[in-house]
Amino acid sequence: MTHMESARAGKINDALQAAAAKDGVSPEALLDAAATGRVAILAGDRHEAVSPVAVGAGLRTKVNGTIGTSPDQADLTAEMCKLLAAIRAGADTVMDLSIGGNVREARAQILRECRLPVGTVVIYRAAVDAAQQGRNWEDVSEDEILASIQEQAREGLDFMTIHPAITMGALRMIDGSGRITPIVSRGGALTGKWMMGNDCENPLRSRFDDIIGICRAYNTTISIGDGLRPGCLHDGLDSAHLAEYATMSELVRRARLAGVQVIVEGPGHLRADLIASDVQLLKKVADGAPAYYMGPLVTDVAPGYDHITSAIGATLAASAGADFLCAVTAAEHLSLPQPDDIYLGVMAARIAAHAGDLSKRIPASQDWDDRLSKARYELDWTGQSSHAIDPQKFESLRRATPTRSPSCSICSDFCPMRIFAPARESRKRATVGR
Amino acid sequence: MTHMESARAGKINDALQAAAAKDGVSPEALLDAAATGRVAILAGDRHEAVSPVAVGAGLRTKVNGTIGTSPDQADLTAEMCKLLAAIRAGADTVMDLSIGGNVREARAQILRECRLPVGTVVIYRAAVDAAQQGRNWEDVSEDEILASIQEQAREGLDFMTIHPAITMGALRMIDGSGRITPIVSRGGALTGKWMMGNDCENPLRSRFDDIIGICRAYNTTISIGDGLRPGCLHDGLDSAHLAEYATMSELVRRARLAGVQVIVEGPGHLRADLIASDVQLLKKVADGAPAYYMGPLVTDVAPGYDHITSAIGATLAASAGADFLCAVTAAEHLSLPQPDDIYLGVMAARIAAHAGDLSKRIPASQDWDDRLSKARYELDWTGQSSHAIDPQKFESLRRATPTRSPSCSICSDFCPMRIFAPARESRKRATVGR
Repeated sequence: MTHMESARAGKINDALQAAAAKDGVSPEALLDAAATGRVAILAGDRHEAVSPVAVGAGLRTKVNGTIGTSPDQADLTAEMCKLLAAIRAGADTVMDLSIGGNVREARAQILRECRLPVGTVVIYRAAVDAAQQGRNWEDVSEDEILASIQEQAREGLDFMTIHPAITMGALRMIDGSGRITPIVSRGGALTGKWMMGNDCENPLRSRFDDIIGICRAYNTTISIGDGLRPGCLHDGLDSAHLAEYATMSELVRRARLAGVQVIVEGPGHLRADLIASDVQLLKKVADGAPAYYMGPLVTDVAPGYDHITSAIGATLAASAGADFLCAVTAAEHLSLPQPDDIYLGVMAARIAAHAGDLSKRIPASQDWDDRLSKARYELDWTGQSSHAIDPQKFESLRRATPTRSPSCSICSDFCPMRIFAPARESRKRATVGR
Repeated sequence: MTHMESARAGKINDALQAAAAKDGVSPEALLDAAATGRVAILAGDRHEAVSPVAVGAGLRTKVNGTIGTSPDQADLTAEMCKLLAAIRAGADTVMDLSIGGNVREARAQILRECRLPVGTVVIYRAAVDAAQQGRNWEDVSEDEILASIQEQAREGLDFMTIHPAITMGALRMIDGSGRITPIVSRGGALTGKWMMGNDCENPLRSRFDDIIGICRAYNTTISIGDGLRPGCLHDGLDSAHLAEYATMSELVRRARLAGVQVIVEGPGHLRADLIASDVQLLKKVADGAPAYYMGPLVTDVAPGYDHITSAIGATLAASAGADFLCAVTAAEHLSLPQPDDIYLGVMAARIAAHAGDLSKRIPASQDWDDRLSKARYELDWTGQSSHAIDPQKFESLRRATPTRSPSCSICSDFCPMRIFAPARESRKRATVGR
């Protein structure tokens, strides 16, 4: 039974139990959401090391950290350092987007070592295989693509991104919309190129029932990628983007009918004032399926700071109902991220996720902030550090400019906590004495 | 004539002309907004080096970079390095919040060197003088405080923050609200302590007409500080915070009646979903005066990353109508920021300001993004770098992991721009040929 089938049968399986415990909610509360598809339990049957994670409505917003080789840097040791950086920064899941070197060995090692749910864009492997064999991507058959997807599910993938919602009609809209960046999704570009080259509709949609069958067999969650997602502000919410959203609707229904969990992806790049509408739209077309956002980046002009531009957009997305955030690194658009970039990107996305949880009024989410703020008022530096999202960063900055006062070196003797507290206390005593 | 009086007389003075040119708007368009107080021209008569800057409705959101000594680090050379970092990062204005060492010499040097409008919290100097003389702050007389304010306006300050909207009633609400962090504003704490110690109402309000007179004489803009601003999420929009907002209303009216420009300050720390309401509220009580926000930080748990938590809140604030953002550094709450912290903080605030401008639909604001995105699609790395908000950062990350492809090392041969473009072109040719 898949996690969804199990939930529909009213059965609390081990994965749901573990995921509920991790989120601090009761398994019973999770059961209905998992049965209807508003929550997905990420835990593939073949990923032995996995500690299951739930994403979706009513739960803490989750963060994915992305790692992976490229043809320019395909060292497996470097990959494991990136994995550790993502875990150390507190990622909830990891996507391995390796496209260089021995991609099978990289995946195997990651699945062996990583307790976090692991996902990927499954079409990459067939494309990498073709390139490494010197074949044209368009000449790879539908059956070969399906076989590659099955191979990866069997290896133990917890969730897989595919781009079945790209249609020939939507591809034609790219030109009609006057897009600046036609396709920026790697999986979307591969899918679109295959369709164009073979002059036919999307095999990931025509063979969607086969893919559902594979995911059913291995309890893999489908993530419907946003292959035509806007890659710049200019292209946001244009007709190509909306056409893909529209097609997602049918695919969500088909997966759920077969008892297979499905999540849906949003952009990309989007103006801050449009993000809440985008989330509402995606949640509507996908009938409440968990929504997975990569940012969105709220401006295109800040390469080198896209962990910040994406954290801004991700906070807006999570506040409006997005359930799952893909960390974006400062190296985005520039170079393959290194462990420090991944650490910082995951940390920024976690800040966005928590800020979103506060907006969504996830129960008790503000307790964390209140604990830190109380320690701050009391000038309890140990307490502040222990409640900080990154105690190590806290300590290094705290020590950067030492102080001779019990406060910090910004205000020193003029610390507002220390200036006002005694005046307030003596006033209180005077009032009581009257 | 003050800038406001000049605008009311329909006269385009030099400062308004220069500020309009800097914003790329016509002086005529600025005239009405400056006359009614929806825009303030920051340019004190005595700051000879100043290049005027306008803040307010319809204009690009501006960013302030904060520098200043503390008793723990009072080196003037270090201060000048901070000033240069703020300017290099693209700050529109600078606030010197020095509270250590020779604060007069620091101010004089900054005013001499800095073309950006310079502001401060004027009460600091009287408090620092008292401390350096071994006197109790509460024993400093109203007249001494006023004299210190006058001294600073005469030195050439372009804008001054004071906290005249703190009332005894609002101070009493701190206890009633069960605040976690009673007062976190340094100027607010000094003002509150003086009131408590002297058991009287706020001298900055009772002597507000004198302060208006000083500002009128030197064309200094008044920034009404948010002295009881929430210093943590828990305290946001509580009665003490709202009571201070309520009092701002009267003060804005009084300053405007006298032809003195006034801007108003917001928080601090606030949940993301409350920020738009806070901005609307502040704009309403201040009758459309330019709104100046310090963040707000959308979570308390991320000391070490408060340039990010504040950039998130600042984007929300600017999107909702805030006109002026105070950069917050990663060292906030931890240690006196150093030049690199200030550079990064200003850069993060500029990202927020631009993202806000896009939301506010400031004319042509998206052209910048579109230019960069076009260069990105064309893999024009020189063009991307030249349009990036920080070309130096762009170049260093671009070179971090070299590539042998015309793309970047993330995707290399699998660059979505390169995958899809040829397929699309050949499809277009085939369609035309049919």
